[in-house]
Amino acid sequence: MNGGAPRAAAGTDAAGDLARLSVNQETVKQWSLPELAEGCAAAGVGSVGLWRAPVRAYGVERAARLMRERGLTVTSLCRGGFFTARDPEERAAALDDNRAAVDEAAALGAGALVLVSGGLPEGDRDIAAARRRVADAVRDLAPYARARGVRLAIEPLHPMFASDRCVVSTLGQALDIAEAFPAEQVGVVVDAYHLWWDDRAPAQIARAGRGGRIACFQVADWVTPLPKGVLLGRGQLGDGCVDLRGLREAVDAAGYRGAVEVEIFNPGLWARDGAEVLAEVAERYRRHVL
Amino acid sequence: MNGGAPRAAAGTDAAGDLARLSVNQETVKQWSLPELAEGCAAAGVGSVGLWRAPVRAYGVERAARLMRERGLTVTSLCRGGFFTARDPEERAAALDDNRAAVDEAAALGAGALVLVSGGLPEGDRDIAAARRRVADAVRDLAPYARARGVRLAIEPLHPMFASDRCVVSTLGQALDIAEAFPAEQVGVVVDAYHLWWDDRAPAQIARAGRGGRIACFQVADWVTPLPKGVLLGRGQLGDGCVDLRGLREAVDAAGYRGAVEVEIFNPGLWARDGAEVLAEVAERYRRHVL
Repeated sequence: MNGGAPRAAAGTDAAGDLARLSVNQETVKQWSLPELAEGCAAAGVGSVGLWRAPVRAYGVERAARLMRERGLTVTSLCRGGFFTARDPEERAAALDDNRAAVDEAAALGAGALVLVSGGLPEGDRDIAAARRRVADAVRDLAPYARARGVRLAIEPLHPMFASDRCVVSTLGQALDIAEAFPAEQVGVVVDAYHLWWDDRAPAQIARAGRGGRIACFQVADWVTPLPKGVLLGRGQLGDGCVDLRGLREAVDAAGYRGAVEVEIFNPGLWARDGAEVLAEVAERYRRHVL
Repeated sequence: MNGGAPRAAAGTDAAGDLARLSVNQETVKQWSLPELAEGCAAAGVGSVGLWRAPVRAYGVERAARLMRERGLTVTSLCRGGFFTARDPEERAAALDDNRAAVDEAAALGAGALVLVSGGLPEGDRDIAAARRRVADAVRDLAPYARARGVRLAIEPLHPMFASDRCVVSTLGQALDIAEAFPAEQVGVVVDAYHLWWDDRAPAQIARAGRGGRIACFQVADWVTPLPKGVLLGRGQLGDGCVDLRGLREAVDAAGYRGAVEVEIFNPGLWARDGAEVLAEVAERYRRHVL
């Protein structure tokens, strides 16, 4: 329920201490999908998180085959969601797009389809109503995902994204939505970057674990100053102030046995050699997360 | 307890609908203190929020006399706090500085001394411990403030400031600290900009009101994209997505009868004529807050 243990990377010398490490492809965005597959295999990393746009550009079935051939587990597909529109046509279009995302997650055998809820529509000041629309949209999407064996994972984003990206701001809110469904159908994402500041996160992680709701555990570090737009300000593991090990221990104590997915949006990392970045991620993971 | 009603501006034609409006001097940072006093009197604004640095530069007693002569109520003095240091000498220096801030607030007859807690010390990853140090520091400062008739007001800042500016991120956390003291000694700041995203804010505002803890109510709007460093990204009232009227009604329903202080850090406003900005603030206040 709390995510399957990632398979060992086939045909690699995966060190035991990297067995749970998953690398989200945005961390090494400079790599194509084949480079990612090759680079992870070479580094002994057996799991990846993928994004829809590069997967679609490469071809969904082709990407799925590539991952299978390299023995890579796809721990998450980012992302569905963005269904806070009030306009009925926009809402219907968003649900159509989410069904396509479910199909892609199914083709990839992804552990979860990550849902980022979307922000407030232009000119809207009613965040409570927007949150209700998210719950409604998940209800509309859930049967389609269930029929295709895809688990939905609601991701709370940091409150600094509440207006323009994700009105679901805390793990408690995500669980309130998820718990209307069986745990194997709708879980949550615990992302250290988004939740580190929240004094209720430990209790909500325990709640999520009790219910078998932790579909993904993601890590990045919090560094300041935040850049303009704030999206690309995530730090390499260990460069910031997040107690990554403490949060990893908390999800473990809650019963999670799945992957630890490193998802860092950082142009500084993208400007470097991908293999060098991946090696650094592995080293930081050992030092600050394990 | 919930802040006194601001006095009507003496010698002005203060329209009744601006009776609660207070203008924080950072909103019209281009103005000197005499310009602020003159401009507010001319615009029928009877209350201001002041900052320590410009007050000290002008002279504390002199500033107090200026405000008295113009019949201006000082609703808040920003700011004390920044007492999360672990180092004993740094901590002692912070407390010394806070006692000076209390003295200044007393001289100005300020309705409250706003406390911004401070962030995590360099290299520190234990935010729970930093929050405990804030509670300890308030305990150390409270008797000094009480003896001088100064009310302390703990301000929760948006979680995007948790690492570098304020580990107190929610109204609930601020109340947990304040409630160890009598309400007339330690209250809280309810700032719409910092709390708008929080689904628990309505319940915490009600809690704050029941306890007579609302020492200040501040407003600014949330606009995106956030600028680099995020501090100076606040929007003019009505330019963003905050339900300012709803929050004002919530503090009113909780029993608050004090000022509505407009505190907007925005270089775009600072580049304009101060009187024009103040007139716009008054107009937006009528349209979006009243």
